[in-house]
Amino acid sequence: MNIQLGRGKTARRAYGIDEIALVPGPKTLDPELANTQWTLGNIEREIPIIASAMDGVIDVRMAVELAKLGALGVLNLEGIQTRYEDPNPVLDRITSVGKAEFVPLMQEVYSQPVQPALIQKRIADIKAQGGIAAVSLTPLGAAKYGQTVAEAQADLVFVQATVVSTNHLSPESVTPLNLASFCEQMPMPVILGNCVTYDVTLDLMKAGAAGVLVGIGPGAACTSRGVLGVGIPQATAVSDCAAARDNYQRETGHYVPVIADGGLITGGDICKSIASGADAVMIGSPFARAAEAPGRGFHWGMATPSPVLPRGTRIQVGTTGSLQQILRGPAQLDDGTHNLLGALKTSMGTLGAKDIKDMQQVEVVIAPSLLTEGKVYQKAQQLGMGK
Amino acid sequence: MNIQLGRGKTARRAYGIDEIALVPGPKTLDPELANTQWTLGNIEREIPIIASAMDGVIDVRMAVELAKLGALGVLNLEGIQTRYEDPNPVLDRITSVGKAEFVPLMQEVYSQPVQPALIQKRIADIKAQGGIAAVSLTPLGAAKYGQTVAEAQADLVFVQATVVSTNHLSPESVTPLNLASFCEQMPMPVILGNCVTYDVTLDLMKAGAAGVLVGIGPGAACTSRGVLGVGIPQATAVSDCAAARDNYQRETGHYVPVIADGGLITGGDICKSIASGADAVMIGSPFARAAEAPGRGFHWGMATPSPVLPRGTRIQVGTTGSLQQILRGPAQLDDGTHNLLGALKTSMGTLGAKDIKDMQQVEVVIAPSLLTEGKVYQKAQQLGMGK
Amino acid sequence: MNIQLGRGKTARRAYGIDEIALVPGPKTLDPELANTQWTLGNIEREIPIIASAMDGVIDVRMAVELAKLGALGVLNLEGIQTRYEDPNPVLDRITSVGKAEFVPLMQEVYSQPVQPALIQKRIADIKAQGGIAAVSLTPLGAAKYGQTVAEAQADLVFVQATVVSTNHLSPESVTPLNLASFCEQMPMPVILGNCVTYDVTLDLMKAGAAGVLVGIGPGAACTSRGVLGVGIPQATAVSDCAAARDNYQRETGHYVPVIADGGLITGGDICKSIASGADAVMIGSPFARAAEAPGRGFHWGMATPSPVLPRGTRIQVGTTGSLQQILRGPAQLDDGTHNLLGALKTSMGTLGAKDIKDMQQVEVVIAPSLLTEGKVYQKAQQLGMGK
Amino acid sequence: MNIQLGRGKTARRAYGIDEIALVPGPKTLDPELANTQWTLGNIEREIPIIASAMDGVIDVRMAVELAKLGALGVLNLEGIQTRYEDPNPVLDRITSVGKAEFVPLMQEVYSQPVQPALIQKRIADIKAQGGIAAVSLTPLGAAKYGQTVAEAQADLVFVQATVVSTNHLSPESVTPLNLASFCEQMPMPVILGNCVTYDVTLDLMKAGAAGVLVGIGPGAACTSRGVLGVGIPQATAVSDCAAARDNYQRETGHYVPVIADGGLITGGDICKSIASGADAVMIGSPFARAAEAPGRGFHWGMATPSPVLPRGTRIQVGTTGSLQQILRGPAQLDDGTHNLLGALKTSMGTLGAKDIKDMQQVEVVIAPSLLTEGKVYQKAQQLGMGK
Repeated sequence: MNIQLGRGKTARRAYGIDEIALVPGPKTLDPELANTQWTLGNIEREIPIIASAMDGVIDVRMAVELAKLGALGVLNLEGIQTRYEDPNPVLDRITSVGKAEFVPLMQEVYSQPVQPALIQKRIADIKAQGGIAAVSLTPLGAAKYGQTVAEAQADLVFVQATVVSTNHLSPESVTPLNLASFCEQMPMPVILGNCVTYDVTLDLMKAGAAGVLVGIGPGAACTSRGVLGVGIPQATAVSDCAAARDNYQRETGHYVPVIADGGLITGGDICKSIASGADAVMIGSPFARAAEAPGRGFHWGMATPSPVLPRGTRIQVGTTGSLQQILRGPAQLDDGTHNLLGALKTSMGTLGAKDIKDMQQVEVVIAPSLLTEGKVYQKAQQLGMGK
Repeated sequence: MNIQLGRGKTARRAYGIDEIALVPGPKTLDPELANTQWTLGNIEREIPIIASAMDGVIDVRMAVELAKLGALGVLNLEGIQTRYEDPNPVLDRITSVGKAEFVPLMQEVYSQPVQPALIQKRIADIKAQGGIAAVSLTPLGAAKYGQTVAEAQADLVFVQATVVSTNHLSPESVTPLNLASFCEQMPMPVILGNCVTYDVTLDLMKAGAAGVLVGIGPGAACTSRGVLGVGIPQATAVSDCAAARDNYQRETGHYVPVIADGGLITGGDICKSIASGADAVMIGSPFARAAEAPGRGFHWGMATPSPVLPRGTRIQVGTTGSLQQILRGPAQLDDGTHNLLGALKTSMGTLGAKDIKDMQQVEVVIAPSLLTEGKVYQKAQQLGMGK
Repeated sequence: MNIQLGRGKTARRAYGIDEIALVPGPKTLDPELANTQWTLGNIEREIPIIASAMDGVIDVRMAVELAKLGALGVLNLEGIQTRYEDPNPVLDRITSVGKAEFVPLMQEVYSQPVQPALIQKRIADIKAQGGIAAVSLTPLGAAKYGQTVAEAQADLVFVQATVVSTNHLSPESVTPLNLASFCEQMPMPVILGNCVTYDVTLDLMKAGAAGVLVGIGPGAACTSRGVLGVGIPQATAVSDCAAARDNYQRETGHYVPVIADGGLITGGDICKSIASGADAVMIGSPFARAAEAPGRGFHWGMATPSPVLPRGTRIQVGTTGSLQQILRGPAQLDDGTHNLLGALKTSMGTLGAKDIKDMQQVEVVIAPSLLTEGKVYQKAQQLGMGK
Repeated sequence: MNIQLGRGKTARRAYGIDEIALVPGPKTLDPELANTQWTLGNIEREIPIIASAMDGVIDVRMAVELAKLGALGVLNLEGIQTRYEDPNPVLDRITSVGKAEFVPLMQEVYSQPVQPALIQKRIADIKAQGGIAAVSLTPLGAAKYGQTVAEAQADLVFVQATVVSTNHLSPESVTPLNLASFCEQMPMPVILGNCVTYDVTLDLMKAGAAGVLVGIGPGAACTSRGVLGVGIPQATAVSDCAAARDNYQRETGHYVPVIADGGLITGGDICKSIASGADAVMIGSPFARAAEAPGRGFHWGMATPSPVLPRGTRIQVGTTGSLQQILRGPAQLDDGTHNLLGALKTSMGTLGAKDIKDMQQVEVVIAPSLLTEGKVYQKAQQLGMGK
């Protein structure tokens, strides 16, 4: 499995979601018989899809609606919603400035302090409206606002950074967050991420994670690979981390779900992530296209942009339908971005997978969807001549 | 042959038609000496090309013309032709609405019921005009309309779904079609598909198939890979299924042809499919470009669009010549989409293949026609500067 | 080396010129010390570059000029020059019609008969003006006009078809050209091609070829891969055929040069072809760009288009400089299409290769020049922002 | 590791920077704890980034500013700065002519002789203003102007050609530069390049190099691969040469840094070069985009263009910020071209690398950033719909 990069180094070939495809085998199933249920912490959900903790994707209303539709949305507790009593004027500015002004505006907007009172208010509002209060903090934010979140009785807490480890070296002036203590002290399940390797997944599970987010650098709105050189193709990362989950269960009896996060756009991407070993996926841009999304047809990466090294481009994804259409259909687009649950159930039917554990076992082939000349010909017909 | 996708999963590398090329060897042949004849069920044809059962491709007239020209066209019995006495106004609407209205229109158009009387009429018309009445049903449709088709004395029946298996789990309220019983009960040969694996091909042959359609997700107008994550590169799929055919013949003495279906556009694609092991091909978009095609220069996928999860984009393929020109030439285009029979015979001559069985044995190389920088340079010359 | 395409077939991976690069090693050389001389039949040339027998590339004047500059140009004896006393009006029409009219016009133009008297006249003219009379015939043409060419005392004869073999099956009414007899009977050296394999190269050398043309389907103006599925990546084809040449020399003492023909555009392509094992290259489009070329800035493939299955698109390559600039410099373009001899000598200097035999031994790496995201970024800068 | 290119030749697969990615492991680090210091000759620098000796990138002012910001810039001693007392009118012409006039203008501009007095003046000016006088000569120039440079007391001398070797064959009329003697005679450290192999790296180190430049043909503004066929993917080249460095140190105790040079544009490219084994990088185009750059928003390759075979296209890279922003931030772009030091430190933090030696050891995966269909979809969103 090791390839000689050069005399001084070996490297493994890693595969992306775009490089694999699923193989229908000897059994098939009516889609309505496919059971997509999964459990995160103590919360059972019909749909294994989580909406990302991004300011263009989730506000109180979106979190509530997603929960009602059988899915889950995570509110970013260090973003616009907790820095501004009324986020609307800020969202209006972010989605109307020109491209050149975007980075400086983001740096300005996120220089306002997070208000603990707004953390409490947003959590309370979600719960009052019948939603599931799943919220997200960075490791630094977790140290600062963990107590507030615990008191506000959120249902689930995501501690999420581009890269997380249980062995973080900080300057002497800073006490780094101890992930294991944090998981122990918080009264609700804690989901940790992101990571991409077997070893780190095991570390996080041992630290008490109720779920592990897998994915570094594969996403459309995340520019980690260009800026940092960091970015692991998602199919390999998910498969590695799923193997850690299965071994952890074998040893401890605990099943800790692995959530593929980043770079997933279509129903096909979701199906392939689960077939690579994931229990669920976290996606942003498909929900940024919902009429109800706070992003007004825009999507931008990174919960909290760095003041000195911003990553995460703003993309105009457009508004293509209601949250209901995107999640449960009926689809009005045929490109795989509407009726994500329907796509998953149909794929499972096609592959004879009765539930998520079955779906993790389906046959996969390496089948790069590269742009060959033939495909360019097809695309030209679709794009250039299509009406 | 197994590649480690990650610690939790292995995967095989599968190859597409765009990734292979054929190698001329020590013998050559005058193209006129190449014999392209093949047999499906009890029907012998000069040309191993079948036109897909799609509403933009086949109506009664096309089916008749194709038969007269030495090929075969399959009429979709659950499409526009059997839902509307006069399909013309519907075809006019489909080919004139804007892109955004296409999916809702298709959902509306296909909500009209199929009329058994029209099934009988279309079959009778084809036969009356001297054509071969090859018709297509979904598995559900086969259960409903099989008896009607039997009575109408169609010549060949295709039972076709995106994915078919002999082990399909249905809700208790539904009795799934038993493929073996269906094949036994129908008075004419039954062709089954689609599938992509050795095992399912064997299952279908054992169930009594007179032909097996191979191909899931490779086609231009089919969006299965984006929506469902499902889609097997065609060269590998055909080669696997051809091996099943050969083993089935070795064990039973019966030769059941394997038909490559999906994603084939040019004469070269047809040649490479047969060299991968196919006995014949089923193609749609090349015939949608015929002046006689019901699609008026448009092509759209899927026999029957799902009301909740439509797949199959509409493509404006344009009208480039007569059916005669496309199938038998003379070509007026040099891009491989005219004179498909001439291309096959010339390729066989070049490769020294006297008949289809010879052609299945020619040497193949893996030779991706990827878009390299050099090819982009060439394309720029062809497209940007060509007049 | 064999890859499993599927259960029914294995295939070898073949590499194109775009997929390789040359590696400078421990020696370097002043370019002026690089000796590029080679011998074809009894003709010694300074430059291992032959201009293709295409109607847009070679007429009497080009053949003469190329010989004087140290290279070689081959006149197509079944093209416009031998069908029309004055080819100019025909060339004007070919280079002025619209894209849609091109194929029918070519079919009309080439329906005029070849005139043996014009064959004699063109050969005489080249010789009278001090050129080398290298001429080209198809196998059918060789049977018909071989005697005429022998009498006209051409210096070199190329018998060239898309694919040639020593074992060609013809209809009973036709006596196929016996290549061995032809080579024996002709009073001048005969070059045969095209082929792509070790075995056919050996066959052709045994039949008496004074040179073998290697390349099927890789060229820009040749659409064999799209139309016929046939087309072997050139680096692998050249390497295979060069091995046959070396073994043939080992066994017989005769050295028969291998000429890479097709798809080569830049100086880099020429260098890589020789490093793959070629003794020389045959190129068309770079010379079609010369001010002196008969094609008036256009290039079109195939010596004689088929009346029923034309292949070979017309490309507007533009006119970029004089033949002198293209072949020997000084270059006024920095894209590798000017000063081809200078590029070869500089490359040889860089690689420490003193002569062509050295150049055939330099180290090669597989290094696909694929369009990665990074390269697209660079291209965008070059194309979109360049002035 | 050897692949059969064909029967006559084997070849190694080489990997480019675009084909690899870095894998975060079990440790992480605060970016401010990452130590990026390195030493070249006797000169210690905070930032392992050198600005290329190109006329659009470095003049006296840029060299001084780069040194003050913790990096290094190399002045081309055979370019515009030493041929013209006042380079401004020349730079104005180069950056204002049309594309077609560029090559002839460059040939004219560089036909003016180099003035030794200007060599002395430029070096003196850099030193007077507190900069580090790092300068560059070709091997021919080193023979001619080495003495001048020694007397002017430059701090570092780069002897740089597209390809350098210790075994160069020249015509008898020319005495080639003996690299070992040159290194010995010069009173300051000499950096040699470029090379791409283990053996040549060892040769150059044995000849006395204080640093070795690695990279042939991978750069955006360098067209060596197209023109000469020469060009080694950078990740493999760096890894091979780093192995030579480590073995040389093991045998001799001397540590000679390896500098990756060519084709690097973003912070991610820099991080991946170091992870492949480099101690530092040399980059051009990112600095050509600085407001202070002499190129006025343009970048062009090759220190001294050949009068007969020019390589090195002019690219309009635009001006995107100050040198300070590009090198140390804060970034105002999120595409990886601003705050290169911040990107490196953040990447090292993410990967748990405390210093450059640690960074050379991080895990690498082969992960081609090829343009797949999914990525084209994303790009279309970013480019076509982004505002």
